[in-house]
Amino acid sequence: MEVTRTNFKDSLSTVYSAIEEADFLAIDGEFSGISDGPNVSALTNGLDTPEERYMKLKKHSMDFLLFQFGLCTFTYDQAESKYVIKTFNFYIFPKPFNRTSPDTKFICQSSSIDFLASQGFDFNKVFRHGIPYLNQEEEVQLREQYEERRSQSNGSGNPSYISPNSNKGPGSIPEEHREYIGRVVEKVESLFTTSEKTVDLEPCTGKMCIYTTLLFQSQRKGVLCDDIMGFQKERYIQISKVDDEERKRRERQKQEREQEELNDAVGFSRVIHAISKSGKLVVGHNMLLDVMHTIHQFYCVLPEVQNTHHLYMNTVGFPSYDTAQEQLHEAGYDAFITGLCFISMANYLGTFLTPPRAHIPSQSKLIQPFVNKLFLMRIIDIPYLNISGPDLQPKRDHVLYVTFPKEWKTSDLYQLFSAFGNIQVSWIDDTSAFVSLSQTDQVQIAMNTSRYAESYRIQTYAEYVQGRQQVRESQGHSTQSWDEDGWVKPHYTSPSTVGAGPTGYSYGHNRRSGPTSLGVCGFDLVSLGVCGFDLWCL
Amino acid sequence: MEVTRTNFKDSLSTVYSAIEEADFLAIDGEFSGISDGPNVSALTNGLDTPEERYMKLKKHSMDFLLFQFGLCTFTYDQAESKYVIKTFNFYIFPKPFNRTSPDTKFICQSSSIDFLASQGFDFNKVFRHGIPYLNQEEEVQLREQYEERRSQSNGSGNPSYISPNSNKGPGSIPEEHREYIGRVVEKVESLFTTSEKTVDLEPCTGKMCIYTTLLFQSQRKGVLCDDIMGFQKERYIQISKVDDEERKRRERQKQEREQEELNDAVGFSRVIHAISKSGKLVVGHNMLLDVMHTIHQFYCVLPEVQNTHHLYMNTVGFPSYDTAQEQLHEAGYDAFITGLCFISMANYLGTFLTPPRAHIPSQSKLIQPFVNKLFLMRIIDIPYLNISGPDLQPKRDHVLYVTFPKEWKTSDLYQLFSAFGNIQVSWIDDTSAFVSLSQTDQVQIAMNTSRYAESYRIQTYAEYVQGRQQVRESQGHSTQSWDEDGWVKPHYTSPSTVGAGPTGYSYGHNRRSGPTSLGVCGFDLVSLGVCGFDLWCL
Repeated sequence: MEVTRTNFKDSLSTVYSAIEEADFLAIDGEFSGISDGPNVSALTNGLDTPEERYMKLKKHSMDFLLFQFGLCTFTYDQAESKYVIKTFNFYIFPKPFNRTSPDTKFICQSSSIDFLASQGFDFNKVFRHGIPYLNQEEEVQLREQYEERRSQSNGSGNPSYISPNSNKGPGSIPEEHREYIGRVVEKVESLFTTSEKTVDLEPCTGKMCIYTTLLFQSQRKGVLCDDIMGFQKERYIQISKVDDEERKRRERQKQEREQEELNDAVGFSRVIHAISKSGKLVVGHNMLLDVMHTIHQFYCVLPEVQNTHHLYMNTVGFPSYDTAQEQLHEAGYDAFITGLCFISMANYLGTFLTPPRAHIPSQSKLIQPFVNKLFLMRIIDIPYLNISGPDLQPKRDHVLYVTFPKEWKTSDLYQLFSAFGNIQVSWIDDTSAFVSLSQTDQVQIAMNTSRYAESYRIQTYAEYVQGRQQVRESQGHSTQSWDEDGWVKPHYTSPSTVGAGPTGYSYGHNRRSGPTSLGVCGFDLVSLGVCGFDLWCL
Repeated sequence: MEVTRTNFKDSLSTVYSAIEEADFLAIDGEFSGISDGPNVSALTNGLDTPEERYMKLKKHSMDFLLFQFGLCTFTYDQAESKYVIKTFNFYIFPKPFNRTSPDTKFICQSSSIDFLASQGFDFNKVFRHGIPYLNQEEEVQLREQYEERRSQSNGSGNPSYISPNSNKGPGSIPEEHREYIGRVVEKVESLFTTSEKTVDLEPCTGKMCIYTTLLFQSQRKGVLCDDIMGFQKERYIQISKVDDEERKRRERQKQEREQEELNDAVGFSRVIHAISKSGKLVVGHNMLLDVMHTIHQFYCVLPEVQNTHHLYMNTVGFPSYDTAQEQLHEAGYDAFITGLCFISMANYLGTFLTPPRAHIPSQSKLIQPFVNKLFLMRIIDIPYLNISGPDLQPKRDHVLYVTFPKEWKTSDLYQLFSAFGNIQVSWIDDTSAFVSLSQTDQVQIAMNTSRYAESYRIQTYAEYVQGRQQVRESQGHSTQSWDEDGWVKPHYTSPSTVGAGPTGYSYGHNRRSGPTSLGVCGFDLVSLGVCGFDLWCL
């Protein structure tokens, strides 16, 4: 089902009940770009830590727009032994809803736009009919604006702000408008001498309309001002004589209208709130960016990594979507495919049981080890980013941190280490790189050889990490070690300090602690509602 | 005529000859946004200097994309006494043409996109079929890339870079590829023992294709390597036995193909080059941003204002395009309307002649005073930015520069100056504003009154300018006064120093010097070819 601004309100109850009845959800996003800094291969270093990767994406990816959001709900029908599937394809665009609303700027990356264009992506649908949204802060601001306006028009604001008689001071009416205001006052007063109920004032500029409204709301009991847009788009004020009851009825109406306007402005974020509130399992493919964009765009500013040090990661091997198929890279369809793959993989886990089971529900304990682990692309030795626990600390005893003149190329590094057989180079920047040796015992030889070198410098990975830690501490970052939950897997060394843990933040009610079993399937499973938003957004 | 990537090459000769035969050109651009910083009304201070305005636009407007360019050519038919009009509406998009080409990022502003969407703008046409472009630097880089590749494949590059036998050093083939290379060498050598002309190597990765090509081009005379994409998108090398003549013929072909690729990549910039080269008068409406975008996107990085201090400005009063009409805000149509208005206004000037003349050609001396003056929106007392001469220096004796705590609002300023009657406030930032008094002799009173004030501070405009100048000099900007060309108009004081003039830059062959006659019509006239690009881009 395609959802745009046009049918959003009518579809909302369908979306809500689909989420409510689902066993699990699959999501997918399409963005206006990936990296506004280095290109993706330069952005990703194979020896990034999860923290570094998170910070890079936060810095270089969040100014793009998530403009299509795919949601596919999967509900298992026990009687029929099959899943009932509902797919929604939301088009998203931050259409400003009035003159004071945020005028969002977003970046487009030509290669991403070109790729989507080549897949037949409908940009007109996004820009003409995209559903607006607000994050929580913007929603609060808008609510406050409405309240402020209401208290002003109730006369409880600053009633002396505009005075028709004042000659001086901030509340005075500029010379050139005095005549207009004089005519208006006359017209309104004469309304009270007739049986007419309303009188239309002459068209005026927006500023004068506000002046006039403030003037009467604050000074004259028994009138109501309505700001009206005429057929010719001219703006004028309609003044009505009202008794107290009528005034209250109208205010109630207005309040309801305002609540509806507010809901319209919050727009697509309401769907995200519903997903979050449902606590349902959310399945995605390579979904770190999707999750980050979803939080950033519809929820709140992404936290500094200190507060999310439990952002760590998982998994490989999921078949890529590069095959040519018509609807691929439409977010709804991608979410659908992702959900199908998840079902197959969950059921595959069932074949290892004795006796084997054909259907593994998404709530199964077999799935649990994979929950809240986000795949980290192109990192050699850390499979996932763990949202609900500390991240893995791989052994990097065979890794050297090398600094050198900026003229050096990969070939210079190969030459430097030519005595050590195969090496792997992971560039950090123009003048530094990680060099992974094939054997750990070569590290000491390399260190000894480099002692008298002048053009380059070698540190062990441990020295490098320690140095960086010292720099951070000298910059005032606190160091705090995490409890160890016994989650450490064989092949990974135990983390001594996992970095600055969050202080004073709730970890949510679902913090995982069991040992994990990795490397089987290629999925990111995030239970947004359970683990997620509250945790990240304090 | 609508021009996209699809018909661009076929339309180019039509466009060229339309420019060539035209008496004048009208242009208009549509952008993906206006300001990535403050909103437009906060961006523009009514007492900006032209330099300040230019710098603000350079800083806050150039990361948007000009994605539709309207060109309308006007050719006067003497026999028929009417203009022949040709309109072109170009869709522009920086589609990356290969993996090493620039992956342009551009900003979109929601309000601008929403406005264009509401006018029925076709974003799909832009993103799917937009014509690519390169600025001059990118064109040079691409040309060099082609030349480097050619010299490499001619063997004149670094022939020893890849050697099949080397075990060490940067030119060595990694262990895992040795077997593949061994098979390839065998296959190629056996080609020379048969009557076959070509042999297809097995599919390989891009990197291995390059390895293989380099290997044979540098080591083996009498073969040519072609990098081929198969039906299944697999990539492989085709090796051909060739004699010298065949090799030359093929190289010529390749060179022609490359030249065509280069032309395709330069794309829409070729139209701008043609306009520039033609030297024709270019007419626009409120075209400062259009000119800046055109230079920035299709020509070169905009110069620092020191080098363009001859960017100054002109005109007011041109009827706005806000009337509801179907094709408005399509760039081609807007250019067309702009040209029509120009014709009417030029002919209106003819009514002042004795005897009156019905047709005033665009080359007329009557038009000259308006040429190279760009309208500056929302500046109180400087009507235009002059591209080919120093800018006007308005009297600002009645203006005060006031600094105050950031809590102050406009009403506080009104209160402070309440003794002085009507004032005009032009905000600079949170803690400063210009306050224009209605009478110059009040300035001294205000200065005296403020002497002992603690919460705010007042300077005369002259003091403010001098202070800013000192700051700039202390930062190493040179001060150099311009020759006065006797261009100064009545009502404007003579500029003593006009600011830092360009040093060592050619002023072009068309530097204007006659007195100007302002205030009649509302047009920006820029002769891009004559005054423009060379001058700005040294």
